[in-house]
Amino acid sequence: MEQENQESVKSTSQENRKQYNNNKRHNNPSRPSGQNSNKQAGTTGANPSNGSKSKSASRGRRRQSTPVNDSLKAFVEINQEAHKQRLNPHYKLDLNSKEKIRITPLGGLGEIGGNITVFETEKEAILIDVGMSFPDEDMHGVDILVPDFTYIREIRNKIKAVIITHAHEDHIGAMPYLYKEMQFPIYGSPLPLAMIGNKFDEHHIKDFKQYFNPIEKRKVYKIGEDFEVEWMHMTHSIIDSSSLAVTTSAGTIIHTGDFKIDHTPVDGYTADLHRLAHYGDKGVLCLLSDSTNSYNTAPTPSELSVAPALDRVFAKAEGRVILSTFSSNIHRVYQAIQYGVKYGRKVCVIGRSMERNIEVAMQYDYIKLPKNIFVEPEQIAHLNDKDVLIVTTGSQGEPSSALFRMSIGEHRHVKIKPTDLIVLSSRPIPGNEGSISGMLNYLQRAGAKVAQDRELHVSGHASIEEQKLMLRLVNPKFFLPIHGEYNHVMRHRDTAMLCGVPERNIYIMNDGDTVEIAPKYMRKVKTVRTGKTYIDNQNNHKIDDDIVIDRQKLATDGIVMIVAQIDGQHSTMLSKPIVTSFGIVADKQDKFFAKEMEDVLEHFLANIKEGLLENPRALENDLRQAVRKHIYRKMKKYPLIVPHIFIM
Amino acid sequence: MEQENQESVKSTSQENRKQYNNNKRHNNPSRPSGQNSNKQAGTTGANPSNGSKSKSASRGRRRQSTPVNDSLKAFVEINQEAHKQRLNPHYKLDLNSKEKIRITPLGGLGEIGGNITVFETEKEAILIDVGMSFPDEDMHGVDILVPDFTYIREIRNKIKAVIITHAHEDHIGAMPYLYKEMQFPIYGSPLPLAMIGNKFDEHHIKDFKQYFNPIEKRKVYKIGEDFEVEWMHMTHSIIDSSSLAVTTSAGTIIHTGDFKIDHTPVDGYTADLHRLAHYGDKGVLCLLSDSTNSYNTAPTPSELSVAPALDRVFAKAEGRVILSTFSSNIHRVYQAIQYGVKYGRKVCVIGRSMERNIEVAMQYDYIKLPKNIFVEPEQIAHLNDKDVLIVTTGSQGEPSSALFRMSIGEHRHVKIKPTDLIVLSSRPIPGNEGSISGMLNYLQRAGAKVAQDRELHVSGHASIEEQKLMLRLVNPKFFLPIHGEYNHVMRHRDTAMLCGVPERNIYIMNDGDTVEIAPKYMRKVKTVRTGKTYIDNQNNHKIDDDIVIDRQKLATDGIVMIVAQIDGQHSTMLSKPIVTSFGIVADKQDKFFAKEMEDVLEHFLANIKEGLLENPRALENDLRQAVRKHIYRKMKKYPLIVPHIFIM
Repeated sequence: MEQENQESVKSTSQENRKQYNNNKRHNNPSRPSGQNSNKQAGTTGANPSNGSKSKSASRGRRRQSTPVNDSLKAFVEINQEAHKQRLNPHYKLDLNSKEKIRITPLGGLGEIGGNITVFETEKEAILIDVGMSFPDEDMHGVDILVPDFTYIREIRNKIKAVIITHAHEDHIGAMPYLYKEMQFPIYGSPLPLAMIGNKFDEHHIKDFKQYFNPIEKRKVYKIGEDFEVEWMHMTHSIIDSSSLAVTTSAGTIIHTGDFKIDHTPVDGYTADLHRLAHYGDKGVLCLLSDSTNSYNTAPTPSELSVAPALDRVFAKAEGRVILSTFSSNIHRVYQAIQYGVKYGRKVCVIGRSMERNIEVAMQYDYIKLPKNIFVEPEQIAHLNDKDVLIVTTGSQGEPSSALFRMSIGEHRHVKIKPTDLIVLSSRPIPGNEGSISGMLNYLQRAGAKVAQDRELHVSGHASIEEQKLMLRLVNPKFFLPIHGEYNHVMRHRDTAMLCGVPERNIYIMNDGDTVEIAPKYMRKVKTVRTGKTYIDNQNNHKIDDDIVIDRQKLATDGIVMIVAQIDGQHSTMLSKPIVTSFGIVADKQDKFFAKEMEDVLEHFLANIKEGLLENPRALENDLRQAVRKHIYRKMKKYPLIVPHIFIM
Repeated sequence: MEQENQESVKSTSQENRKQYNNNKRHNNPSRPSGQNSNKQAGTTGANPSNGSKSKSASRGRRRQSTPVNDSLKAFVEINQEAHKQRLNPHYKLDLNSKEKIRITPLGGLGEIGGNITVFETEKEAILIDVGMSFPDEDMHGVDILVPDFTYIREIRNKIKAVIITHAHEDHIGAMPYLYKEMQFPIYGSPLPLAMIGNKFDEHHIKDFKQYFNPIEKRKVYKIGEDFEVEWMHMTHSIIDSSSLAVTTSAGTIIHTGDFKIDHTPVDGYTADLHRLAHYGDKGVLCLLSDSTNSYNTAPTPSELSVAPALDRVFAKAEGRVILSTFSSNIHRVYQAIQYGVKYGRKVCVIGRSMERNIEVAMQYDYIKLPKNIFVEPEQIAHLNDKDVLIVTTGSQGEPSSALFRMSIGEHRHVKIKPTDLIVLSSRPIPGNEGSISGMLNYLQRAGAKVAQDRELHVSGHASIEEQKLMLRLVNPKFFLPIHGEYNHVMRHRDTAMLCGVPERNIYIMNDGDTVEIAPKYMRKVKTVRTGKTYIDNQNNHKIDDDIVIDRQKLATDGIVMIVAQIDGQHSTMLSKPIVTSFGIVADKQDKFFAKEMEDVLEHFLANIKEGLLENPRALENDLRQAVRKHIYRKMKKYPLIVPHIFIM
């Protein structure tokens, strides 16, 4: 504890009190004795300056120095050296080594999502995760984005394996798209493999499950000739997550995967800090660490901290409870079910991903729940409302989700009642606030109450303090912040510098940057092609970039089609042109607009260049320019313009 | 990151948008398409239900289960076993082992302070720390409390060494008192030994410095036949602190000492989590851990976090800065000096413990500061106020401290000016609030401004999250929360239970409890004598208990002395008795009170028992009873009553 040396703090206040007590008939007890002592006459005969004599005397002179004890001083130096060894174990790295490794993120930087990272030696390579991401608002008709595989194609013969950290979509979602084209052994813990397996089933590539190599955590797997990989258990918002220790001849690289440090996870499987410490003590060449919550100063709360809020929800609910959360957060779903059951409710799981994830978690014994607590949607109507817990998808207000369909009265089995309590155990993914709010409007119009307290959700990513713990445990020579937009990784860089990583030993990667790391240096050596492939989820097929650009154009500026028959001899219209437009003028102005276009065409024909009528392509092109010019002048828009001219 | 499976979240909102875009002339864009699709006629000819067909179809049936992959399931079990091994390494302990160790706290439980713990095998013992504590308000004239050494005397021949964790008074303050009576080898890192050395000098037992054994952290020292001890560097509010790993044939015991987990300590010497993890992975029999801040939910901020507040202080100060903090918090003092120097100030150190601690820290290279930044108090007057930083003791308002003397205008060199800025980089130790407030009144009456923001101080003890990290790293089989009052250790017990220690494996010790620990069990086997010895700091001598009890009596109830001459023949007073009282009646009532006592005495003599006058002792005793009865009836007080009767 913080206590002062013995001449100060309480001891001296005791001295003072003693002095005070010596002086009976003290005039002003609230005034300190020092100030009064001269004025006082001790009725008990005690000398008021008694006891403080030696102190007063010592005030006049400076204290004499105690000589330095040479043996102690020698041990100060010995300990300083011991600290240096322990804090910089990578100083043991052989700086003359020619060994090196290259790291290339093909996704996951400058964005949150689409994580793929290539670890590459001279002759071999491994891929860490093969994730997808979600499109921006303006990527019309695009359901998911898959990283560009060009570079993977280039080095496909070097690739010895795909290494999976955890089962979130942004880490495994692109696997079917990659595997349809090329296959490698897949190493991962059981849950990610089971979830990839489900994807392979859906994509009708069941056979590729033969590439599965389930791993045991804390074991080192030799992969190819050049890689040794250990999976270290990590806490995150999905169970069975891992950090990786990848050892090559250049040194050990720690890849955190996605993580938080949860000391009280629901299954009791804490983050394996011991193995991180083990590598950190041996000396780590480079750390790649999750930057998602780089700004969060408060520690990320434990998954267990949601329990009291869940309990309160069920304690107060008077009708059905309809709870929605991320279906991949098995422990959240598990906790919700536990509290529902505690209050005597049966559980109905609605929503494809929710059903599938609970099924997988139970099939593989990640959670244990008695079968008889579950009911089918058809049975809900036969139960008392107080006996029903519906666990469902839709916490992001997704229009095709079960909860959304309930909200608009379109769900087959569940119609919202005024006594229903809707629980959103989640937080909006940025961009989804509007759709969630819209859904809440529907739910509340239907009379339901909504609970969405902050206590009902916790994040799965490390805050600053946990990032610091990771940095201090791993003690890396070089640091590559990953899994975040530019501002996230930059903030993570600052944290790393506070934790002893020199600025020159940190590199801020962009997707496609190939960074070469050797014991002596880290530098960017080239840039490879990256990008996104657009996928239409309905058929799992690629959508070409130009389709998306057209859709953006259509959505932003609209389209005009002009069909006209021209008398080739006289450069005149044979009839009124047919003008069709979408997204440009209101319906009631369609006619007026058509007339305008007719005028433009007339004017165009009147001033037509010699010979243009013989060249339909050039003709249409020039007409398009004329129409564009007109529309831009009037409306400041550049719609798609589609002229069809028939020369008669 | 938390992303949903591909059929939900954004992907579906994209689907919806596509459907929406298919339908030109949408009536109510804010209404979801699902609700409107039936009413709409697609002007573009697109089928509005197109694309959601398969989804609609699948709504009607329950999804088919994917069969369990046996290989994956086998690996789930393998990993469960691996988790069990890693989370409970002490399961490897040999439960049939007859080896055991006994732990007895002789101070530090049920209180904060006075830490001494005995680790004892059959034949040998070591003491961990020998600290003092501070008296309660009612221990008049007592400056410090030293634990009762009775049990140490009993086992003195078994004791092989004193082991020191860190240099705070509550861990080393009783060393001189113990060593005057008996001596053992002392093991510790250099700073604690240097500070003990200073104490030995002050107590004129310099020669006992021969018992010093400075240690190197991370090395294992064999002590006696039965103990192996490693000091592991730990962060705390004093530099050069350690946790201990004590290995005996019964197993390893981790004693945290006092700690916080500071990832950015001022000297860069972070807590040695790696060694804790090392022992935690091997299997730890028992953990003893610091309970001081058991209630703090927010992580204890880094010592470095004080820097911005210090910087602001100096940036805005227009005159002298007079900064006070705990003199043992070398890094705080160091930071304050650094910021003072940054703003061009010279540094004057005032206060004995402050001078001594800075001197020791500089002598032993714990901090490095150029000599020419320091000035003597006499020189302050010759400098511009803007060029002066005074670092001083007194942050607890101790009446003999330099700052207190300044506040009441009694300091020889420093008179408070209205332009002075007083900075309290500290928080009140409970019980000192009043004296600090009093000092602040004086300082502000003298015109000075006072800064004491929360940002100017951080604690040195682990909050709940750090206690959890310690528990998870060490993974102990048994847990003994230490260093705290009863409610602190009880709260720490709850935290341990959350971190996987079963309730039956936790024992709440009181001072004197001897707890026996073997791989198979932990139980209390006896209670030894404990208590406090009162020390008067002026002469470093013991004050007997009865003296303190008398002082308490005097302070609470006062004293009456009655001197009377009695005619032995007639049982009458020969003259008026002399009555002297203190602490009973006001001066102006002295005469009235004396008359009352005379009446009591007269009445007593009139009714005196036969023969009593021949027995002066019994006489005085009976008179005392009579006076007591009278005074209690009138005043409800039991003063000390001192009758002196002369029989003539």
